Amino acid sequence: MKSRLLTPGPSPVPEETLLEMAKPVPYHRTPEMRQLLIEVTQDLQYVFQTKNPVLTLTSSGTGGMEAAVVNCVAPGGKVICLIAGRFGERWRNLAKVYGAEPISITVPQGQAVQPEQLAQALAQHPDAVAVCCTLSETSTGVGHDVAAFGKLVAKTPAVLLVDAISSLGVMECRTDDWHVDVCVTGSQKALMLPPGLAFVSVSPKAWDLIDRNPTRRTFYFDLKKAKTNLEAGETPYTPAHTLLRALKVSLNRIRAEGIETIWKTQARNAAAARAGFQAMGLEIFATRPADGLTVARVPDGIDGSVLLSKLEKQYGLKLAGGQDNLKGKIVRLAHMGYIDQFDVLAALAGVELVLKEMGHPVEVGKGVAAAQKVWAKGPSVVKLG
Amino acid sequence: MKSRLLTPGPSPVPEETLLEMAKPVPYHRTPEMRQLLIEVTQDLQYVFQTKNPVLTLTSSGTGGMEAAVVNCVAPGGKVICLIAGRFGERWRNLAKVYGAEPISITVPQGQAVQPEQLAQALAQHPDAVAVCCTLSETSTGVGHDVAAFGKLVAKTPAVLLVDAISSLGVMECRTDDWHVDVCVTGSQKALMLPPGLAFVSVSPKAWDLIDRNPTRRTFYFDLKKAKTNLEAGETPYTPAHTLLRALKVSLNRIRAEGIETIWKTQARNAAAARAGFQAMGLEIFATRPADGLTVARVPDGIDGSVLLSKLEKQYGLKLAGGQDNLKGKIVRLAHMGYIDQFDVLAALAGVELVLKEMGHPVEVGKGVAAAQKVWAKGPSVVKLG
Repeated sequence: MKSRLLTPGPSPVPEETLLEMAKPVPYHRTPEMRQLLIEVTQDLQYVFQTKNPVLTLTSSGTGGMEAAVVNCVAPGGKVICLIAGRFGERWRNLAKVYGAEPISITVPQGQAVQPEQLAQALAQHPDAVAVCCTLSETSTGVGHDVAAFGKLVAKTPAVLLVDAISSLGVMECRTDDWHVDVCVTGSQKALMLPPGLAFVSVSPKAWDLIDRNPTRRTFYFDLKKAKTNLEAGETPYTPAHTLLRALKVSLNRIRAEGIETIWKTQARNAAAARAGFQAMGLEIFATRPADGLTVARVPDGIDGSVLLSKLEKQYGLKLAGGQDNLKGKIVRLAHMGYIDQFDVLAALAGVELVLKEMGHPVEVGKGVAAAQKVWAKGPSVVKLG
Repeated sequence: MKSRLLTPGPSPVPEETLLEMAKPVPYHRTPEMRQLLIEVTQDLQYVFQTKNPVLTLTSSGTGGMEAAVVNCVAPGGKVICLIAGRFGERWRNLAKVYGAEPISITVPQGQAVQPEQLAQALAQHPDAVAVCCTLSETSTGVGHDVAAFGKLVAKTPAVLLVDAISSLGVMECRTDDWHVDVCVTGSQKALMLPPGLAFVSVSPKAWDLIDRNPTRRTFYFDLKKAKTNLEAGETPYTPAHTLLRALKVSLNRIRAEGIETIWKTQARNAAAARAGFQAMGLEIFATRPADGLTVARVPDGIDGSVLLSKLEKQYGLKLAGGQDNLKGKIVRLAHMGYIDQFDVLAALAGVELVLKEMGHPVEVGKGVAAAQKVWAKGPSVVKLG
């Protein structure tokens, strides 16, 4: 049976990138590796849509988030955390660990924090040093209006720290235009690499804050050191350089396709996925859906864990379920990186077949047909903001 | 031209391990991945020679060192740092960053810290909470008598933190028998993997200290969280799981050969490398040499950088030079992991040829013959402590 990985990270890796990782291991301090890091950084700046340095860390995306907090936020600093799920909560937990004072704006699962809520919080807490949010909340499939958040935060002394781990490279993200001060992503989502690397862009406003932060109790995640090293084409410590070399292969693919084209294509795949699920009678969980994954509520009377297990065992389709209190209640289907429209079609087809088998009243073919109708409309269906 | 990587990390990776990394990327939260982590951990416990948990971190080895310090040492705590080179210095720098009070015992480059020096420091600082050292100081090729250090530290309330990054899996290291409380290594040395993973063993004495440490300002490197997760076959954050899967392949190789056999084999390769260099008239830089790498002083009048460059360009032999003030003054030849006696022979042969070309009075064949004589003596040449 053919397997298809359709989880919102790790996501599938192109064959030519996989093969790159099987090449012999080189020494890491050579002119060639310096050149590689410089080129990869330029490609990442393109994907991030930023002129600021993008720092490569050997860690998961969470390490990148930790780097953002420990470098920017001194103990006692107020941090407004916009929380729409467990990854928003991670910002709060990070702030707590570093002795900051988190101000939480929490919305029910499936909903997005509204820009008005942030405006209110900023007015109430003019002394906030940072605002933290997710561009795409991977646990619920919610996408946030980071452009609007950025406009609000830019007027204040606070910096905007964005977890774009499951969104960067799939969903519109204009780091500089949107005034995102620290943008964090991981390698194993839309960048089409296995996990192991995190990437962090840092704006001049954030560097200024970092320069004025007297504590910065970190060694491995010291962003100033990373920046100084990057200027010489180096990393402070031995990087996962075979991943970095493979990243260049995946980034070449993104460059060739064009980031705006990718945004539009995946936004359309997201629209098709939503149409497909809805045509099967499933409800879309996110009121403001992200483009990198679609989350559908499992119908009453259907055990979501059984649904996922059947999809995997009978059809080789690996989708993700809900985490924590959402376990068994939602399915999460990714469309990012190396997942294309026909992979999404396969997933919808599988869900349709399994739902029917499990006794859910579904008209077979309706889900895939609804998705096809979205794709048939062509690229014009999507307009970037 | 055939290339040979002979640097003390990254070191070459076996072909079957490389191919494992080219396999399709699986989801990371599955029973299979849990089983893999459990098996890898058991294999690592064997390599570490410990019954304690060995935690896998997605980071370079430095991340593992940081985890040791931030978890064990509260701000203000006295940390005795045994410094024989830049990696010993790294412990001190880490201690400083975390607000600890480092007590430095520094010896000149090429020398090893003596157990008597540690005994004296422990007597002077009975309130020390930790002692930090390197088993193998990669910058100078010095090996430390960690067994002796462990005996001394075990009698005190302090914990012994050991950087075994370039030594674990190549040089005798009996974590439990030697009373090493936190032993740190990286993936890209004797464990025959690319960089990207760090491994940290933690003794009950260290867990007790960690439990009593009120600060522990870390999120990503929280060892308690890593331990709790490991008990369920998980990691707190997405691990570099394709590296982990490949690690199993390399660990199978270590299991098949047997760790004591590997220690003896590489100790013999080290003895052969020393004999080879000395027969060419080169001085061994370390007064107490490690088994994972041999460092020779470049003869007066020879530019070490040119020597290394010629080795690489003319013979495909990639050796390492000196760092910082030792740049151009030493050559560092690794014999760890997937580097065997004939690779060492090739390196010696290359050095001999290039030295002759550069005008150093060397009798061609003498170096390789001297090494051969060591190998001809058979395994009995090495006795483990």
